[in-house]
Amino acid sequence: MSAWEGKLENVEVYYWPITGLAEPIRMTLAIAGVPFQDFNPKNKEDFMAVKEKYGCQVPFVLIDGVMLNQARAILRHLGRVCTYEGKPLYPTDVKKAYECDNFIELIEDMRTPLGKTFSIQDQAEKEAARAALVSEDGAMGKFLGKINEYLADFDPSTAQLDIGHIYAFCLINMLRQPTFIDGIPPGIIAKYENITKHHEWLANLPPVLAYYADKDEVRTGWKPGCL
Amino acid sequence: MSAWEGKLENVEVYYWPITGLAEPIRMTLAIAGVPFQDFNPKNKEDFMAVKEKYGCQVPFVLIDGVMLNQARAILRHLGRVCTYEGKPLYPTDVKKAYECDNFIELIEDMRTPLGKTFSIQDQAEKEAARAALVSEDGAMGKFLGKINEYLADFDPSTAQLDIGHIYAFCLINMLRQPTFIDGIPPGIIAKYENITKHHEWLANLPPVLAYYADKDEVRTGWKPGCL
Repeated sequence: MSAWEGKLENVEVYYWPITGLAEPIRMTLAIAGVPFQDFNPKNKEDFMAVKEKYGCQVPFVLIDGVMLNQARAILRHLGRVCTYEGKPLYPTDVKKAYECDNFIELIEDMRTPLGKTFSIQDQAEKEAARAALVSEDGAMGKFLGKINEYLADFDPSTAQLDIGHIYAFCLINMLRQPTFIDGIPPGIIAKYENITKHHEWLANLPPVLAYYADKDEVRTGWKPGCL
Repeated sequence: MSAWEGKLENVEVYYWPITGLAEPIRMTLAIAGVPFQDFNPKNKEDFMAVKEKYGCQVPFVLIDGVMLNQARAILRHLGRVCTYEGKPLYPTDVKKAYECDNFIELIEDMRTPLGKTFSIQDQAEKEAARAALVSEDGAMGKFLGKINEYLADFDPSTAQLDIGHIYAFCLINMLRQPTFIDGIPPGIIAKYENITKHHEWLANLPPVLAYYADKDEVRTGWKPGCL
């Protein structure tokens, strides 16, 4: 089966019409120059039927008919078989691979507290809960500070692109405006200068610039100079 | 630095005196025959000072003086440099690697809802919340059912040990008795027959039998035939 021979043919991404956990997958495919179809309930009539057939959570992808699910498992697979400037996007060097994994887990520490807010029914209460989470002392804000510290030694002139950088970029960008996550105050990322440096490096990579050039709304944060 | 050359010398594991997220790390080291020192605040006077020095969450490990943190990033690193029966414990085959990653994420789906119960102050309320989580329709119970389905085709005669199997085994065993997680009703795993098959396979592997032979209390669940 071609999916396991490292070939990426007939790739279909299934997710909601938002960025979220599918965007690192889409962006990795775009960076590697892999064409894919991006399906959601708004552009695919039988979306829910396909989802039900595979019986899994989104995002999931089909690669030449083989289904892969779990966002970070898909991302690692793509990182193994996709390259950028001749290097695999999931490093094979053990130190770089560890650093990539470590960064992904730090981003997960930041993201995890957001999960419980999606079940808050009252809109004002939900927005207040999210504003509290991303405040400097909040459960997410504390980790944004740690991510900023983690990037203290980040040097765009020597950095090597990998799925850890892509995951961090996408998940932090969800907190930039405009966002599908109601209640995140505008401009909260601006104070983290190392995160900004990291963002500008990634947003200005040629395939990233090209892929997001014609995108806007919730993907505005993927462009250079955004808030 | 030897840590990045695949050597595992002078290994120290830092965690609380429980199983939790450090146990997959300890078990992987034990399976690979790597000697290590297992430190916690009860057996190391300056534990908190060492933790503060590195400024990170537990578990963290020192490998010949190099600090690695984030449980699953450590585990993946060990999986790359440790072997069992001549094969790396984090598979290099892309399909097996994906399956390993996928299994880890499914276990995380099961584990994540537990996190919020640790902050419940009232003991009776905390225990009731946990009992609800692991009931068949609870947020963890639903995923225990999915794990059992995931293991429907599991065949001990052809299974290849990897860090995904180790992670699943350890995290599910936390729900077996006796456990440090107050409020988990006894015997809740027994009804999942594929999980039991998976457990017996792993618990009976020679290095696992040997490592847990003299352990008891919260590690009773790591032995064959436990509940």
